[in-house]
Parts: sequence; structure tokens; C-alpha cells
Amino acid sequence: MIIVLRPDATKKETDHVIQKIKQLGLAVHISKGKERTIIGAIGDESVFEEHPLDTLPGVEKVMPILKPYKLVSREFQKEDTIINLGKVKIGGKQIQVIAGPCSVETRETLLHIAREIKKAGARLLRGGAFKPRTSPYAFQGLGEEGLKLLSEVKKATGLPVVTELLDPRDTDIVYRHSDIIQIGARNMQNFRLLTEVGKLDKPVLLKRGLAATIKEFLMSAEYIASEGNRKIILCERGIRTFETSVRNTLDLSAIPVLKEETHLPVFIDPSHAVGRWDMVAPLARAAVACGADGLMIEVHSDPENALCDGSQSLKPSKFAALMKELKKVAIAVGRTM
Amino acid sequence: MIIVLRPDATKKETDHVIQKIKQLGLAVHISKGKERTIIGAIGDESVFEEHPLDTLPGVEKVMPILKPYKLVSREFQKEDTIINLGKVKIGGKQIQVIAGPCSVETRETLLHIAREIKKAGARLLRGGAFKPRTSPYAFQGLGEEGLKLLSEVKKATGLPVVTELLDPRDTDIVYRHSDIIQIGARNMQNFRLLTEVGKLDKPVLLKRGLAATIKEFLMSAEYIASEGNRKIILCERGIRTFETSVRNTLDLSAIPVLKEETHLPVFIDPSHAVGRWDMVAPLARAAVACGADGLMIEVHSDPENALCDGSQSLKPSKFAALMKELKKVAIAVGRTM
Amino acid sequence: MIIVLRPDATKKETDHVIQKIKQLGLAVHISKGKERTIIGAIGDESVFEEHPLDTLPGVEKVMPILKPYKLVSREFQKEDTIINLGKVKIGGKQIQVIAGPCSVETRETLLHIAREIKKAGARLLRGGAFKPRTSPYAFQGLGEEGLKLLSEVKKATGLPVVTELLDPRDTDIVYRHSDIIQIGARNMQNFRLLTEVGKLDKPVLLKRGLAATIKEFLMSAEYIASEGNRKIILCERGIRTFETSVRNTLDLSAIPVLKEETHLPVFIDPSHAVGRWDMVAPLARAAVACGADGLMIEVHSDPENALCDGSQSLKPSKFAALMKELKKVAIAVGRTM
Amino acid sequence: MIIVLRPDATKKETDHVIQKIKQLGLAVHISKGKERTIIGAIGDESVFEEHPLDTLPGVEKVMPILKPYKLVSREFQKEDTIINLGKVKIGGKQIQVIAGPCSVETRETLLHIAREIKKAGARLLRGGAFKPRTSPYAFQGLGEEGLKLLSEVKKATGLPVVTELLDPRDTDIVYRHSDIIQIGARNMQNFRLLTEVGKLDKPVLLKRGLAATIKEFLMSAEYIASEGNRKIILCERGIRTFETSVRNTLDLSAIPVLKEETHLPVFIDPSHAVGRWDMVAPLARAAVACGADGLMIEVHSDPENALCDGSQSLKPSKFAALMKELKKVAIAVGRTM
Repeated sequence: MIIVLRPDATKKETDHVIQKIKQLGLAVHISKGKERTIIGAIGDESVFEEHPLDTLPGVEKVMPILKPYKLVSREFQKEDTIINLGKVKIGGKQIQVIAGPCSVETRETLLHIAREIKKAGARLLRGGAFKPRTSPYAFQGLGEEGLKLLSEVKKATGLPVVTELLDPRDTDIVYRHSDIIQIGARNMQNFRLLTEVGKLDKPVLLKRGLAATIKEFLMSAEYIASEGNRKIILCERGIRTFETSVRNTLDLSAIPVLKEETHLPVFIDPSHAVGRWDMVAPLARAAVACGADGLMIEVHSDPENALCDGSQSLKPSKFAALMKELKKVAIAVGRTM
Repeated sequence: MIIVLRPDATKKETDHVIQKIKQLGLAVHISKGKERTIIGAIGDESVFEEHPLDTLPGVEKVMPILKPYKLVSREFQKEDTIINLGKVKIGGKQIQVIAGPCSVETRETLLHIAREIKKAGARLLRGGAFKPRTSPYAFQGLGEEGLKLLSEVKKATGLPVVTELLDPRDTDIVYRHSDIIQIGARNMQNFRLLTEVGKLDKPVLLKRGLAATIKEFLMSAEYIASEGNRKIILCERGIRTFETSVRNTLDLSAIPVLKEETHLPVFIDPSHAVGRWDMVAPLARAAVACGADGLMIEVHSDPENALCDGSQSLKPSKFAALMKELKKVAIAVGRTM
Repeated sequence: MIIVLRPDATKKETDHVIQKIKQLGLAVHISKGKERTIIGAIGDESVFEEHPLDTLPGVEKVMPILKPYKLVSREFQKEDTIINLGKVKIGGKQIQVIAGPCSVETRETLLHIAREIKKAGARLLRGGAFKPRTSPYAFQGLGEEGLKLLSEVKKATGLPVVTELLDPRDTDIVYRHSDIIQIGARNMQNFRLLTEVGKLDKPVLLKRGLAATIKEFLMSAEYIASEGNRKIILCERGIRTFETSVRNTLDLSAIPVLKEETHLPVFIDPSHAVGRWDMVAPLARAAVACGADGLMIEVHSDPENALCDGSQSLKPSKFAALMKELKKVAIAVGRTM
Repeated sequence: MIIVLRPDATKKETDHVIQKIKQLGLAVHISKGKERTIIGAIGDESVFEEHPLDTLPGVEKVMPILKPYKLVSREFQKEDTIINLGKVKIGGKQIQVIAGPCSVETRETLLHIAREIKKAGARLLRGGAFKPRTSPYAFQGLGEEGLKLLSEVKKATGLPVVTELLDPRDTDIVYRHSDIIQIGARNMQNFRLLTEVGKLDKPVLLKRGLAATIKEFLMSAEYIASEGNRKIILCERGIRTFETSVRNTLDLSAIPVLKEETHLPVFIDPSHAVGRWDMVAPLARAAVACGADGLMIEVHSDPENALCDGSQSLKPSKFAALMKELKKVAIAVGRTM
């Protein structure tokens, strides 16, 4: 931690800062420039979380040196994390696509969609049973009934299932019916939920919050990892900006930043980012070219009558065409699909 | 709902849109301009939540006319909601100040702070027992022990207590020990939690999410109201922008916008917005001048050693001085304190 | 234009709105729903620019139907604009790369860089003679001397030159020494400058402002087009968001949005967006995969000693390697390089 | 400057960084922690503008210690700058209000508005002769004719005039007809224009750009000051955020931040921020309570027929009522009006 003192800091103020740092068990390193005195606090910076120095008189600013996340950092683990889900490897050379409807509606529709996406090359099925909806008057998902349908369709198709957990009270039932548990963007800082999935032995797909910095995103992953679960997939799905021509702004620079900072696999969800089916394809191609380890794409056989997010769902035929395009891009950047 | 067709929409596409609207039980109103055909769908717009028209071929854009929130809207209830908490009226002419530490630490500290804020004129005590912390390694609050301390201090001082609920599993215990239940900014779209507090008969203080639009903020209030609980206090606490000189950007324009849109009381939390104690006072004064019904301010007797958010906490003496200033501003704008 | 009246609008207010629309020469179309009366104003919406209706009593909101840009819209011209610069075609199947240093420094350096980028496959040379710098104390560019060096190097290498115009007083001299005139992000709404380049017969590369919406971006292009110059290249270079891990957030969704809205070629500048040379490559690849017509990339032979933006400049060898990667991605998406 | 090395930085890389700093004439201070080596570069940090260290191998991040602005900083000048404009003092205890129409339209209208605002207590008249309009098809101002009308009305009323300069080629004529020269938000980083007004001896009202950080805002003021003109008024007018219920988000926290960082007077323009006349009053009151030195408010006698920004203009009667309210708030916070 670097503490920059104000130019008018008194000797008494300076001494108080130094004493405080020493009390907390860190070594002190003083450097007097012409315009500012700078104090380096050498040792475990995390103690300052509970003892902030910026409130002390005479302090101008405090600059952390170390990163606040540990277990998820590239420094802690140099090699990429690869998550094995049966024969499906997540985080390796092969790019994985999770596809399926926004919400589970009926057995027939789900089964039909699952077969179509499998034929097109997707290896994981998504489908929401518990849906976080902005309006209390909108369809909230089928709940347990939806989870059971996912299990059935998994049995029929062999596709592992990704579904969202909204409430810690549903942990057991969601665990039973899923292969990857999704934590949605709105729950990225629902720390109780993170703690719950951190105790499980199934992979977690953690979506980036709409207004979460990369640092906060990684801190949420650290919550899960600190409970013992290291099988975490990070998923960027658009951030909130001033631009309104699409629903959210897909932040693809998050891919190289995350690849540098962490060893965890990075997925992209272009469907939720743009919110319009006709712009999913170019951004999906871009994500693959940019280095994403996987994609999450909404597919529905009848988007016009989907109970949720029909506007952003691809029809199976469009999805199949996109998968062919993605394969070419993947090969161009040295990956497989 | 207004549906604008593309200039090249075919007759078949147009007819399909019209038929779809009629199927959903709404009346259709067509207006052909030189450059665009516009279709008005007259009736209950909420059906389009599950049957979005923007995915239909030939449609350029869809513009809702009605507001998505009902119970919390000014249209539904013209007069201001006033919440009575014993002798404390929230939402009336008198401005209320909620003050106290970020988190409950010890009985002595809490009692001391409570007495100081009461002396200064605050009528409500805040204190966190369950703390949502960005880092899994930071102090997470005293939990039930903290709640009990709040109850004790309430008994000793007579100050009603505001505390945060983080997890639906804690609803009962938080209900027991609080007078107003806070839903924090990070949980503004934790719809399960909103549903829980919507079933209770105690007031809810709902904080605006960092990246929530006013419309989304009101939709979250609608979640609570739709379950039966109409005693909702809205609290703006800074939104996330590109500016980094303060922690978040306090959006005071939210006050007149909310006052127009809703009948619910509007509070401002300047402490979390700026994140620096030395800038709390000017923004607190601004909030009162702008029409806020109340403030939420962090006060700690020893900010330097606070276990949470010490940087933004006022010492009791500074708080008392601020209360005097606020009183003058309140009178200047025709309010009392 | 759709005018939504307030639920409590009086007959007098309604009549006043109607009369006003008629006065302005538009036809009126009234639709009374149960909850709102809606008035359609049919005809030339642009008259409302100077006579806004939202200020009239009884009006709740006003929603434009038509787009505010004309000449640059896809509606006005269906086929893509292709700009011919000698043998270089901009906006066609072939993707073009503009490369070179942030600022022109010396003849030797510029010539060396130009030869290197040409060898690697770039067909256009960039280099700033007038530099907009955030600090008045930073290097502001060589001015006319720099322009002359660009002309010399163009003669030596055959590469057409792209350089920025900052001040309307420099129009003549910049015109003389450039093939494409750049309007920088900070000048995107310098309407006087737009008007100046609108009168010229050389292509203009218009960069998107850091906080400009796509609509505003196109309105600035419309300024140029309305003066007669239709040879406009749009260039996205990152927008300002809350994320700080990179300098700006590259908005690749702007590509499909612009491709739908306008017939103009769309370029991407990943160097300025990320501000770090080590993240230019993945975003450049993403841009090509997403449908960009070209790229603008900073290259410097000695980034460590560059007088401007060295941090984001690629060395020639890295640039050459990137060009090979881009070629593969271009082919994968059906383009050439 | 603090340079944090990567944990895996080699001795060669470390030595290169050290040598580089010494070459640039700064002293080096090394501090080896367990996890990171930190290098302090002591001396004039501005040399790193042209020789960025973050591009050197082995460097993780670079953190500046000193502020990039000098002349405008509170460190450089402790006491507040007070600008004297005849009997009007800007930046002192008395709060000043600049009022008038968005654009000058006719002699009669301007004179009428000027008399009304003077009667209500405003001491400065605003009016645009050159208008930056988003659309090339909108009214662009009367130009020189408008400037002459401003001079005439000044003669008739005694009110000093504030008007905007858009183009360096208009400097002379704007100088002749104005008392304070405004640089608009869109030109905050038009460095050529800043340099021009920096050479003049009349006060400059510099508006904050929509996406400008406080630091960038002050750097633009530094541009003006570095040319010799220290009479600078800073004006916050709303920043661009995700919220759409008002045009821009007024950032009142900018007031205390600027008051700490700089000695220059700080004004607030609530009219442009909200873009709606009915929300100007609460935000104007808030600005005064927050410590603003002045306000800029749009007033028009016939907003419905104003040629520009009618939606946000107050009628003279509303303005007069607001001035009375503001006076009370000013007194409450120890200021006068």
C-alpha cells in the first residue's frame, strides 16, 4: 500500500500514519520528495480493509499495490483451469457453446430445441426454471417442474444442463437437476448465494453484473473459490452504458483482461448483451475471434411465442448457420469447436 | 403500444402484426403516413411482455405508451404516502434523518453513537448486522448478535431501528429486531427478497441499484407493493458513472423525477454515494434543498477504527453540526426537521 | 411524431396541442384509449426541432417516429458506399488497414514505419501532425513540418495518407498534404469543423466521440454529407464507461447497428480503445470477425521513446504477425485483405 | 511516480526501468516487498507524458503521485479566485445568476427577457449567437447579428453579456460583443479554442464536457491558464450516464471536489442538465445548498415558440419565483444573492 501525504501534512499527522501502519503489523518505508512525502506499507494489505488509512488527517490518497483476489488470480495459478464435464472440456482448446431457450416452457418445445442445438454442434443445454424478471407481473418460470423437464431432456439427449439458481433456499433442488449452476448478472453480488454455490462440487457459471468492474467480477469469483469450489466459468453478457441502440454494450475487451488476470475460463453471452436476435451472430463471431472459451446463446423454435426474451432468440436454423460460421472463425484463431 | 413498421414492410407482414395484436385481445388503430405505417395497439399493454412484437418481420420499433408500474405510480395514488412509525412520520412535511454506524460492532459503541445522533436530532437508528462485502475476507457483520444489540439499544434510546436483510432465510429474525427493513443496492433486483419483504407489515427502505434506471427502481418497488406491502421508502445512494473522484455519482435529479412518478417517500444516502466523510455535508444540504423526504447518514464515534466504511463516517460532533445546517436549509424550502 | 397526453389533460390543452400541430403544417390523427389520448402528427417531423411540443401543458411525452438523419441513412441509399482512393477501395469486400505512428516525429522514423507497415499489408498510412493532447504541457505535434514529412513519405512509399484536422484555420494545409482527413473523437461535435470538411472533395474519417450515441455519431456524419461530401468513413474507437481496466470500452455492437442504419463504411480503432499494445490484437481480430470494413492501428518502431501514445503502439514485427492473423479471420468471414 | 513491477520481472528488466528513470533526470527509490518490487521515481513526473514507463517489460502498473494541473490547483493558489466584472463579483460570498434565452432571436424578445431577469435579481445575461446544434438542419443562431443585439441590450440594461465562442475564426467578434466568453461542453477539449481564449483578457466560462472527468475538466482549464488568462469560471452542466429520465445527470458532487482541487469559481447549469423546465428549480436550489458560486439558467418569455431548447426554459414569472427561493437557500448556507 502506498500512502501519499498532503503537502501540508504536519509531523504529528505523519507520525500518526506511520504508527498506525506499524500497529497493524506492516513495515514502513518513507520516501520524501520535494512536493510530497510517500509512505509505503509493506506486508499484508488486506488489513486495511477494516482499517482504512484514507480517513487519517494528513493523508491525500491511498493506493493499493496488490490485487484483492488471490485464488482466482493468474498469479496464484499460472495454467488455465480446465473443467471436465464428462467428455466436455471447458477452458481448453475446444470452444463450447451453451444453447437453449431463455425459460423452460413445455417438454415438447425443450426437447425439440435440445435436439436441434445438439445437431448443430452445441454440447450444453441452457434453460431457466427460475427466472428473474423485472416485472412482478411477468412469467417467473416453471420452478421445480421446469427443473424436472431439464433432467428429462438431459436423459433423452445426453446434453448436460445449465440452469440458474436465484434463491439459496432452492440450492438442493437446482443442484439435483443441473450440471452447471448459473449465477445471473443481477445476483453477481448476492454474496450469500455465492457462498452457497462455493460449497458445492458442481461448476458455477458466474455472469458479470451490468455495472460490475472486472475487479468486482473477480472478487465475486473469489467468494465462490474461497469456499472451496474452484470450478468457475466467468461469463460477460454486456454492461450498462449510455448507448441505447442495443440493450447493453458487450465488453469484449474483458476477454483479454480476464485472460491476463485469471486462470478461469471466459464465456460470452451475446444474446443478452444485444437483446436482438439479428445482431447475435456478428458478436458471437467477434467473441470467438477475441479469445472466448465459450458462448451462451439463446435458441427458441418459436421466438414469437416464447414466454421470455423471444426478441433475442435465434431460430434453430439460424443457430445452425451461425455454428458453421463460428467453426471457421475458431479454426482461423487456432481453436476447435 | 405503438408499433412502427419498416418502410419496406409487406402487406403480409403488416397483416400478421395486426392479427397478432387482435389475438392478444387488443384493439388496432392504423395510421399510414408517407414514410411509415404506424399501428396503435389499444388495451392492456402488459400482454406484450410475453409476446414481444419487435421480433415480428416488418416491425422497425415498438414504443410502449403506458408505464409498467401501477401500484407505486402517482397515477394510481395522487396523494403522498406517509408512513407512521410511532411518532415518526416519514414522507410528510418533516424531514427524517436515519443515522448510525455502517455495521454494529459492540454494545458500547452502538449505544454511544445512538445517544449522540438522537441528541443531534436524528429520529431513526441505522446499523448493519448482515453486511454485503465485496471481499470474502472482510468483516461480514455480527449477524444475529448484531440484531440483538440493535434491539437493546432501541430499548435504551427509543430510536426505531433500520437494518438490512440480505438473505430470505434471515427474514424472520430481521423482522423481529427491526422497525424498517432495508434492501440494499446490490439486492434491488433480488426479486425473491423483494417478494419476501412484500409479505411483511413493516416498512421497507429500498435502495436504488448502482446501475438501475428510475424505471427499474420503481419496478422493484412494484414487486414489494404487488405482494401487499405499500410502506416503501425509496433511497437514492449514487449511481455508477465514469467519474472516479468520488465513489459514485449522487443523482439528485432522481428526487423530482420520483416525486412526479410515484407517491412514495424519497430518501438520499450521501455517505455511500461519495464514500468520503468530508463531502457528505454539502450533498446532504443539497438533497434537502432538492426536496428529499429524508436522509441516511453514517456516523461513527471512531471512524479510524470502524470495521466497515470508516472513510465515509462522520464523527458525532460533525454530524451534530450538519444537523444544524440542514435545519436551516429545510426551513428555507418550507420543510421542518 | 406521437404525442402522448397526460391522463388528466383537459379539453383545452388537447385542443391547443392539435391546433399547434396543424399550424406547423402537419396532419393530426387522434386515438383515444381508456388510459391515454394519443395524437399522431403526420408529416415533416423536423419542424418540431424548433417547436418542441413537450413543453405544452397536458403533454406527457413526445416520441419521434422518423430518423433525424437522412443522407447517411440506409433508407436513403440501400447499397454500401465504396470510396475509391486510387487502387484502394474502402467499404467493399476487401478490408483495409490504416497503420502508422500516433504522431509524426522524424523523417527517418516515419519512413521506416511506413515501409514496415506496407510490407505487412497495410495500404494506408496514418500519422498526426496536429495532436490534441489533454495536457497543455505535452508534445502538440510538428504542425506543418509534420504534414510535409507525410507528403514526402507518401511519395517514397505510395501509401495514401490519413491525418487529423483540428482547427478550421488549418483546412487548406491539411487538405494539401492528406488523402483522407481525420476528424478526431474530441471534435466529433465540432460542427464548424464538420462543415469545413463537408465542403471538400476528399474522404473524411470521422471518429466517434467518447460519449456519443450512435444516433449522434450519424448526425455528425449528416453534417458533413449535408455540405456535399458523401465520402465519409465512420470509426468506432471506444466509448467511456465505468470500466477502468482498459482506457475505453470498444463498442463492437456499433458495427452491426451502423451496418443496418447507414451505407457508410465502418472502421474500428482498437489501439485508442484499449490504450495497451498487448490487447490490440484480440480486439482487432474481433472487429474483423464482427464485420468491420477496416482497422486503424498504431505502429511505432520504438514505442518506448514515442512522443505520444507509445503504450498502445505495436512494434512492426508484432503488427506483421497480427496482419497474418487478421487475414485468416477475414477469409473465415468471407472477406479479403 | 510509483512503478510496480510484475512479480516475475527479471533483474535485467528491473535494471532497464531504473536506468530509464535516471536518464530522464529523476531520482530512483527502490522498495522490495515479499510480493512486489516497487520503484519510486522522484522529481518532475511530467517527463513521463512523453516517455511512458508502462510499456517497458516487467512493469505491472504505473501510478502518478502528483496532479497533472498546476496553475488552476488549490495547491498553487490557496485563496479563492474572485473575478471582478464591474460591480459584479464572481467567486465571492455573493452567488451570481446568469440568465437569458438559449439563443438570441429578436431585439424585442431579448430586451424583454433581459429586463425581466434583471428585475428578478440576475446580474448577467446569457444568449447564444453561434449555436452548436446536433442537427445540421436546425437553427444555428443569428451569428454576428445576434452578437450586435446582445451589445445593444447590454447598453439598454447594463447587464454584462455571456455568449459562446464556437470557432477560433470568430474570436475577435465574440470578444468585442461579450463580457464573459463561454466555451461549451462539446468544445471542452477543443484545445485550439482553449488556447485562443487563454490569450484574451476577458473571463472564460468553461463548461464541463458530457463525458469529461473532473481531472480532464481541470486540464482544460489549465490550457487556458497556461496561456495567461486566469479568469476562468468552471460550469458543471450534467454528465452522460445510463439514466434517461432526464437529459443528463447533474453531478453536484463536482462542487465539493472542485472546491478542494481548485481555486476557481464553480457554476452549475441545471437547465441543460435536466432539459425540462419543470425540474430546473429543485436542482438550482440543490446547487446553491451544495456550495455553487453561481448558476446559469435559461429563461424565455415564450418557450413554446423558442427557436432552441424551449423545453428547458423558464418563463420570467417562474424564474422570478425561483430567485426568491434561491435567496432563502443562499442565506441558509451563509451566502448572499
